[in-house]
Amino acid sequence: MISFTCDYNEGAHPAILERLLATNFIQQPGYGADSFTASAKARIRECIGRPEAEVFLLTGGTQTNSTVIATMLRDYQGVVAATTGHIAVHEAGAVEYTGHKVLTIPQHQGKMKAEELKAYLEGYYADGSYDHMVFPGMVYISFPTEYGTLYSKAELSAIYDVCREYSLPLFVDGARLGYGLMSPACDVSIQELAGLCDVFTIGGTKVGALCGEAVVFPSGKAPEHFFTMVKQHGALLAKGRLLGVQFDTLFTDGLYFQIAQGAIDLAMQVKKLFLDKGYELFLDSPTNQQFILLTPAAAKALEGKVAYEVWEHLADGRAVVRFATSWATTQEHVSQLSALLP
Amino acid sequence: MISFTCDYNEGAHPAILERLLATNFIQQPGYGADSFTASAKARIRECIGRPEAEVFLLTGGTQTNSTVIATMLRDYQGVVAATTGHIAVHEAGAVEYTGHKVLTIPQHQGKMKAEELKAYLEGYYADGSYDHMVFPGMVYISFPTEYGTLYSKAELSAIYDVCREYSLPLFVDGARLGYGLMSPACDVSIQELAGLCDVFTIGGTKVGALCGEAVVFPSGKAPEHFFTMVKQHGALLAKGRLLGVQFDTLFTDGLYFQIAQGAIDLAMQVKKLFLDKGYELFLDSPTNQQFILLTPAAAKALEGKVAYEVWEHLADGRAVVRFATSWATTQEHVSQLSALLP
Amino acid sequence: MISFTCDYNEGAHPAILERLLATNFIQQPGYGADSFTASAKARIRECIGRPEAEVFLLTGGTQTNSTVIATMLRDYQGVVAATTGHIAVHEAGAVEYTGHKVLTIPQHQGKMKAEELKAYLEGYYADGSYDHMVFPGMVYISFPTEYGTLYSKAELSAIYDVCREYSLPLFVDGARLGYGLMSPACDVSIQELAGLCDVFTIGGTKVGALCGEAVVFPSGKAPEHFFTMVKQHGALLAKGRLLGVQFDTLFTDGLYFQIAQGAIDLAMQVKKLFLDKGYELFLDSPTNQQFILLTPAAAKALEGKVAYEVWEHLADGRAVVRFATSWATTQEHVSQLSALLP
Amino acid sequence: MISFTCDYNEGAHPAILERLLATNFIQQPGYGADSFTASAKARIRECIGRPEAEVFLLTGGTQTNSTVIATMLRDYQGVVAATTGHIAVHEAGAVEYTGHKVLTIPQHQGKMKAEELKAYLEGYYADGSYDHMVFPGMVYISFPTEYGTLYSKAELSAIYDVCREYSLPLFVDGARLGYGLMSPACDVSIQELAGLCDVFTIGGTKVGALCGEAVVFPSGKAPEHFFTMVKQHGALLAKGRLLGVQFDTLFTDGLYFQIAQGAIDLAMQVKKLFLDKGYELFLDSPTNQQFILLTPAAAKALEGKVAYEVWEHLADGRAVVRFATSWATTQEHVSQLSALLP
Repeated sequence: MISFTCDYNEGAHPAILERLLATNFIQQPGYGADSFTASAKARIRECIGRPEAEVFLLTGGTQTNSTVIATMLRDYQGVVAATTGHIAVHEAGAVEYTGHKVLTIPQHQGKMKAEELKAYLEGYYADGSYDHMVFPGMVYISFPTEYGTLYSKAELSAIYDVCREYSLPLFVDGARLGYGLMSPACDVSIQELAGLCDVFTIGGTKVGALCGEAVVFPSGKAPEHFFTMVKQHGALLAKGRLLGVQFDTLFTDGLYFQIAQGAIDLAMQVKKLFLDKGYELFLDSPTNQQFILLTPAAAKALEGKVAYEVWEHLADGRAVVRFATSWATTQEHVSQLSALLP
Repeated sequence: MISFTCDYNEGAHPAILERLLATNFIQQPGYGADSFTASAKARIRECIGRPEAEVFLLTGGTQTNSTVIATMLRDYQGVVAATTGHIAVHEAGAVEYTGHKVLTIPQHQGKMKAEELKAYLEGYYADGSYDHMVFPGMVYISFPTEYGTLYSKAELSAIYDVCREYSLPLFVDGARLGYGLMSPACDVSIQELAGLCDVFTIGGTKVGALCGEAVVFPSGKAPEHFFTMVKQHGALLAKGRLLGVQFDTLFTDGLYFQIAQGAIDLAMQVKKLFLDKGYELFLDSPTNQQFILLTPAAAKALEGKVAYEVWEHLADGRAVVRFATSWATTQEHVSQLSALLP
Repeated sequence: MISFTCDYNEGAHPAILERLLATNFIQQPGYGADSFTASAKARIRECIGRPEAEVFLLTGGTQTNSTVIATMLRDYQGVVAATTGHIAVHEAGAVEYTGHKVLTIPQHQGKMKAEELKAYLEGYYADGSYDHMVFPGMVYISFPTEYGTLYSKAELSAIYDVCREYSLPLFVDGARLGYGLMSPACDVSIQELAGLCDVFTIGGTKVGALCGEAVVFPSGKAPEHFFTMVKQHGALLAKGRLLGVQFDTLFTDGLYFQIAQGAIDLAMQVKKLFLDKGYELFLDSPTNQQFILLTPAAAKALEGKVAYEVWEHLADGRAVVRFATSWATTQEHVSQLSALLP
Repeated sequence: MISFTCDYNEGAHPAILERLLATNFIQQPGYGADSFTASAKARIRECIGRPEAEVFLLTGGTQTNSTVIATMLRDYQGVVAATTGHIAVHEAGAVEYTGHKVLTIPQHQGKMKAEELKAYLEGYYADGSYDHMVFPGMVYISFPTEYGTLYSKAELSAIYDVCREYSLPLFVDGARLGYGLMSPACDVSIQELAGLCDVFTIGGTKVGALCGEAVVFPSGKAPEHFFTMVKQHGALLAKGRLLGVQFDTLFTDGLYFQIAQGAIDLAMQVKKLFLDKGYELFLDSPTNQQFILLTPAAAKALEGKVAYEVWEHLADGRAVVRFATSWATTQEHVSQLSALLP
């Protein structure tokens, strides 16, 4: 049985495990004060072309999102997200647990629209009782989104313009950032992205690491004493070297992007496979998550041989399903899928 | 330069890294639903002799403590700890961040006394205005303590008796549990410990793992939907296999205890070394952390060659310092220390 | 200038002030242990026909809602409300501040539908990843709603049936309860209401008191140590007598209901006035808040003479406005409005 | 039976009730936008001689303390208080509920010492692991303290100097401020106090009001959107006029201070009474709370006739008790006590 269920089904890219082995007995201080972490941060700053950036390595996605959001908001503020935003749906209320509301606006294939964001903010301040409501305090988008879709450079810029007009920081959740940047449909570079937001994350967990997300403040304006709050919010590791070694490896010789490129190439093959065999897409995703309308016949053919994630059962018998590729997906996996798919 | 600064200066026990390599491409579901985690849990239940136990694997110490405490308390309750308890001092206010007060009682070389706990509880309920105060809702102790000391079985039993008299769950923070259990001074087994508390942790980070703490509810009474709250509190990993593989390895063929035994043997050598050379102990620790009163001459002799942690400078010129051994400490390290120490 | 802006524009019903004067120097213990509070609670229990009920008197609406919700939910749970629910919109994020998400479902003139509630709950538990989401932990409705509308007994029963099927407590926010119960459209008595929910409030502030809301647990199952949590959440008064005297007065000889009846009678006159003069209703409210589509001509005629609340400006020049009557509204006020309205 | 139990045993000063009656039907907007509140704020600014001050009126003491503290701290900070500070002991963990630790230093008859505060702060920053701890973020003192004692101007200045050296705002809890300022032992005026802290409260509840505390930011630097956070934290009233009328009355023609002066005069009589009859003071309080060591004979003589608060029973049979006077205490009450006391 092979699995396209998600992009965290395997361990880590072999280069990461090798590096963990090679560095295992080098004694280093804890809590991110190790030399591997220092090197990883330097490489990330270099990669995005911003020596002034501040970089932090945290354990996982949910804790990263809630830590970033909680530490950038004041008590009276909430975070604006699309209704399908990960923080709004699938993080067990971690943001609310820090005391902040997730303020939702409509989604379009997982994306918010700059004009709807602006209309929301205008409507908020036009409401005479706005100081009895939760103030919009920052904007959250994911890149790629939960549906695998991408914002174009123009869309990102338009959103960021609205944010700046209202003095709201823009937070880009890059849990799958690599898969977004390497998509043929992507017209924004990581350097450009760094200039179009106030904070973004570089997801490790889903792009070849065992765990870990890098939080990047491109202009160096991290919340004061962010380290202490990372610990307080549960996102710190004693052996920070585990995160340091991984990100240092991922950002050496472009491994992070190579890994992502491989997954994207195979995802495009998967998409073509389904289209060629006459399946309909639920939506046209340019990244590593492909959403297909699977027929009962296909489901039966794959049963026990190929795993994927079911999102929804439609009235016509078909199911909306997700096939995800990752750094660990192989050409062989795709060939097997091709052979099995009716 | 060699370091005795702490027990998280290196990576992981080689057996763990080998196992991570060996299992790397086995596809498994995320969030702890993998087979390695299942196996680890089974081994831990078997080790403590309690098939009814519930076991969870979390990322790190602070997040584990605050998750356990927050999920076992009601809003009106706080957690009772010794003034030197880790949660009371060195966790960046993570417990308070969940809304709960840490109620402190006196410490004696890091330990609380059953009679003082009882006096505190009696005094609390004797106070006519107690319902304007924070109710004691659970009791937290560390084993070993932050000073490396251990509760005897009689002391543990006495504390647990008080807890049961007042219907308070007892939580034993075992961040360094292995080093406690393998101490020559320890008269309690892990099976007995499991019967003397309501929840305890088995620390991985400081005993050979890259990261991870096992939370054990010996009688199986975990808070309802603990999984969801672990995610909400930031202590969950998407690749739960990372924790599963590690604890499965640690609890195969007694590796966890062997690792701890080695560190304890070397810690006893370190202690003897200092005593033989005429140094005074700050306190007599039976575990892997040794607290020494270091003379300026010794500090000078070790400078740049042996690292350790300084706790406090005394008026007489000496310093209270900590030498910690770990699973990674070698006989060679101790020999070098011996050679250098005046 | 007379005001129909809201129902908290004046002080208190004269009987309340007289009673405060009469009792002013009677020495009584603080924090709700006074005899007035005891009497008020007894009267409320008698009024709803439930000797087993537990009653608490809190300072104001927002603090009451957030205290009730936070103390009845566990960390992993949120509260389900209509998108227009007061807690979802106009309480400054007070519920989220306690760590809990407000889970919204569609509103229909301010009301939720039992079948949509059920569909939401079914959908929630049908979602394979529900334990990564916020569990629905209770249901909140307002009676009357924020739009002045009322649930019929059948609607209430249907919602309560769904709640019981899913073991979710039902919380009825009665900030304007009196105005709901005294509406000609209301087919549920306070005794029946008490049997159709797990907790409800009797609003004092908007029905003749200076401040105060009574929280009623009809079956006596208040959260343990609710008193302490009321204090912790900021909803307690040292001089609990202020609340006790007010609710004791309101529930003596049916004053609470008489007050509400008077306001309802005048509200029906206001509605008729607008309809008779050809104005359109924004929605047909059977309670003390009337929502009218006001023409520019009318707005001009009332300017500087009659105050009301503007909710929204429509493209056709008209405005959605609210005229609210209260215990303090007089026949003279309505006559003036009638004389001025073109 | 007469009661000296506390200073919130009666209703309100008659002048307040009269004013509530006189203003009852004047229509005014809610939430503190009324003219009475505006006038009260202006009078308080004038009283302290600071036109730039920002003033807010909140419902009660605990909610005021936790709102001020939570809104002035960042997530990584706690508030420093004496171990006997009200927020540290008797507020049901309301501060911790907002996520912040109360950091305690020793008390001396209820007061902290500037040099011990400084030593604490020095020790904190000298600790190499301070960023794993809770940062001291503000300092809280009460004036008078929970033991009725007062800081001298020199003591206040010394504490404020330390605060400024460490850039920590100083918060003075004046729940009984009037009784402090009118004490014969007080050498600081309200104008001077306003210059020796960053925020202070003027307690209404214990000095003649039905409820309410004024929060004063003498230099006008209230936290942004403080109003919204007051609502979020449960300390707002819809009928803000209730607080406005009361503080407007208290600060008209010096009523607040006259009320306090009366209580202080009687408290000094009570103290003299006990001393003249040979009773020992538990401590020598210069304000309206007198702490006496009461003999069993006296307790018996007063039983059923005079109420007071028992703090502690001593081994020698005596009890530490509190006799509190208030705005409502009369010469007749003191005479009765005198006649009954053996």
